[in-house]
Amino acid sequence: MNNFTFYSPTFFAFGDGEEQNTGSLVRRFGGTKALLVYGGGSIKRNGAYDAVTASLREAGIPFVELPGIQVNPRSGKVYEGIELCRREGVDFLLAVGGGSAIDTAKAIAVGVPYDGDFWDFFSKKPAETSLPVGVVLTLSGTGSEASDSSVITHENGSLKWGNLKSDVFRPVFAVMNPRYTCSLPAYQTASGATDMLSHICERYFSNTPDVVLTDRLCEALLKTILEAAPKALKNPDDYAARADLMWAGMLAHNNSCGVGRVQDWASHQIEHELSAFYDCAHGAGLAVVMPAWMEYVMDHDVMRFARFAVNVFGCEMDFAHPENTAKEGIARLRSFFRALGMPTTLAEIGGREADIPAMVSHRAEKPGGFPFGGFVKIGPEEMEAILRLTARG
Amino acid sequence: MNNFTFYSPTFFAFGDGEEQNTGSLVRRFGGTKALLVYGGGSIKRNGAYDAVTASLREAGIPFVELPGIQVNPRSGKVYEGIELCRREGVDFLLAVGGGSAIDTAKAIAVGVPYDGDFWDFFSKKPAETSLPVGVVLTLSGTGSEASDSSVITHENGSLKWGNLKSDVFRPVFAVMNPRYTCSLPAYQTASGATDMLSHICERYFSNTPDVVLTDRLCEALLKTILEAAPKALKNPDDYAARADLMWAGMLAHNNSCGVGRVQDWASHQIEHELSAFYDCAHGAGLAVVMPAWMEYVMDHDVMRFARFAVNVFGCEMDFAHPENTAKEGIARLRSFFRALGMPTTLAEIGGREADIPAMVSHRAEKPGGFPFGGFVKIGPEEMEAILRLTARG
Repeated sequence: MNNFTFYSPTFFAFGDGEEQNTGSLVRRFGGTKALLVYGGGSIKRNGAYDAVTASLREAGIPFVELPGIQVNPRSGKVYEGIELCRREGVDFLLAVGGGSAIDTAKAIAVGVPYDGDFWDFFSKKPAETSLPVGVVLTLSGTGSEASDSSVITHENGSLKWGNLKSDVFRPVFAVMNPRYTCSLPAYQTASGATDMLSHICERYFSNTPDVVLTDRLCEALLKTILEAAPKALKNPDDYAARADLMWAGMLAHNNSCGVGRVQDWASHQIEHELSAFYDCAHGAGLAVVMPAWMEYVMDHDVMRFARFAVNVFGCEMDFAHPENTAKEGIARLRSFFRALGMPTTLAEIGGREADIPAMVSHRAEKPGGFPFGGFVKIGPEEMEAILRLTARG
Repeated sequence: MNNFTFYSPTFFAFGDGEEQNTGSLVRRFGGTKALLVYGGGSIKRNGAYDAVTASLREAGIPFVELPGIQVNPRSGKVYEGIELCRREGVDFLLAVGGGSAIDTAKAIAVGVPYDGDFWDFFSKKPAETSLPVGVVLTLSGTGSEASDSSVITHENGSLKWGNLKSDVFRPVFAVMNPRYTCSLPAYQTASGATDMLSHICERYFSNTPDVVLTDRLCEALLKTILEAAPKALKNPDDYAARADLMWAGMLAHNNSCGVGRVQDWASHQIEHELSAFYDCAHGAGLAVVMPAWMEYVMDHDVMRFARFAVNVFGCEMDFAHPENTAKEGIARLRSFFRALGMPTTLAEIGGREADIPAMVSHRAEKPGGFPFGGFVKIGPEEMEAILRLTARG
């Protein structure tokens, strides 16, 4: 186990009806005027908007609104939000929704007290100060409600996304009512579950020795998601399954299961190019990339993939041929994604094999573009090979 | 899964050498003058005292000292510490050691800013404000480095212990260097491991439905402790085993594995009487009580005890007679405690069967004395029956 620091100071209020405490939580964490950051009409249809605004009124917290945040959130809304906060004297960011609303709120929160361009904190220096951010989560998967990061796509000139980790990005509170996720379209539920699985796998596949404790925590979360996601798709109102997914999504990304080990994150790096090129849901892109990445790197540590197959998917261990067990685990993961209705090939997210060299070049232009990956180093050649595997599926 | 709140805002710095950051952490969390709270000579022998005080000097943090904290810490040292802090203008409590030093520091920290008797917060009202408490952990087991509680024995008149939970009891930081636990006597290592196991079992045995996620987290921690404790006893310098125990001890008691469920805590309630009567190590008392409690309550939910046997101890499931599997799990736990060198009978901690009625009466005199236990309600009769089982072993 490597030395590490761990800091997850977010206050969680979890369960049906907890959104009624939003106003008092804003007050507890120092807010006197809030900016509500959210997406489209879903929080108005499912009742979250009404419950949250009623709670703010009851607590005497005035608020202004920044609606219209979209999937793969853009810098334009961040600049608009910073301007709005300054003009209106806002001192608290309240995101209502999923990762896009939360990541936008985090970016606004570091931008408001800063004289320069907020993008500095996404491209060249870690943020050190921020307005407090609270979350009312209505969509689970990204883990942004407790994570130390925010991913924003800059739309000036060519698209580029930025993400610098910093503890100031961790929300001060997160209200998590699984009931709000019952009305999600199946595709979003599946995409969120895929994102959670990936957040754990990016930590699980590691070369650091003596990490059996976190290995087991990873496996506990993975098994729970594998059980709960199909239940939630089959019966969208299954509260227990929705609750398991929502809490697992937080634990998958607040780093509980990743401390003390070198993590990988290669699949995420590759997926960000798919999102940039095809604007696909992050989870959908991950369902395409992860099994291909696993096939490509499996020989690096066959026994770790065999452990994954046995401890997560319940495969029988082939002691004479562990590589067969390892392959079986990867095949089961791909089948699982298909059963969830996720794409597993490049073509299914509208991608073309002909774009692969351009995606590799686009990656190369980023600061610190290559190599990436803590488990197996990925250079341009390896990235191309993995993307070619996604074309085959 | 029940609704819950979860708040574990402690900053953890984990690993060999991390104590060198103590001074800068005190500064980061607002301290300008510290009270060092510790026990006897062990932190002077193992180098922790020198490293911590050097780090404070380097960070320019003056400090005064309160040594001499003993196992099952008493109120006298708390009053002495409060007085010292006020006289010296201390604004930060730094506990160096294990649960006794930490619990004393927590009690001092709530007492300093309070006009009345600190004992109010241990007997009748939850604490709402506190000086910040930092921890340098040199002994794992109690989990007090991240927990929301403090257990102090009052020595005015008859002995009585107090413990009211409050988030203000959570330390602001915990420096955790597993290396310092390598020089512990075997008995203390074993006692600490037993305490951790009990903190998980008190949460695991629950009647709340739909808690499979936290069940699995509990099992992951239990299995890790079962593996690591014998390794640490066999080879005291096994850093990996010491690290697993130290981090598992924190997770066992910051409530990570207990959210959303009604917890039990009957074994702890009964053990506190053993500690009060015989001044035994808390872990040793728990090794005596827990298997007896399990035998007594097993029939309440045989399948949960069977799950415990299979998923934690790797017992084979007897599908025709699950009660046999359940009993096998309890027997394995008792054998495990014996293998660690822990007592498993009342006589082994110097107890006498003749004292049992007095222990039950002592319990009855406490505010809210009976019944207790969230899994099975324990009244005076049940407590006596369980204690009689400990006399047999």
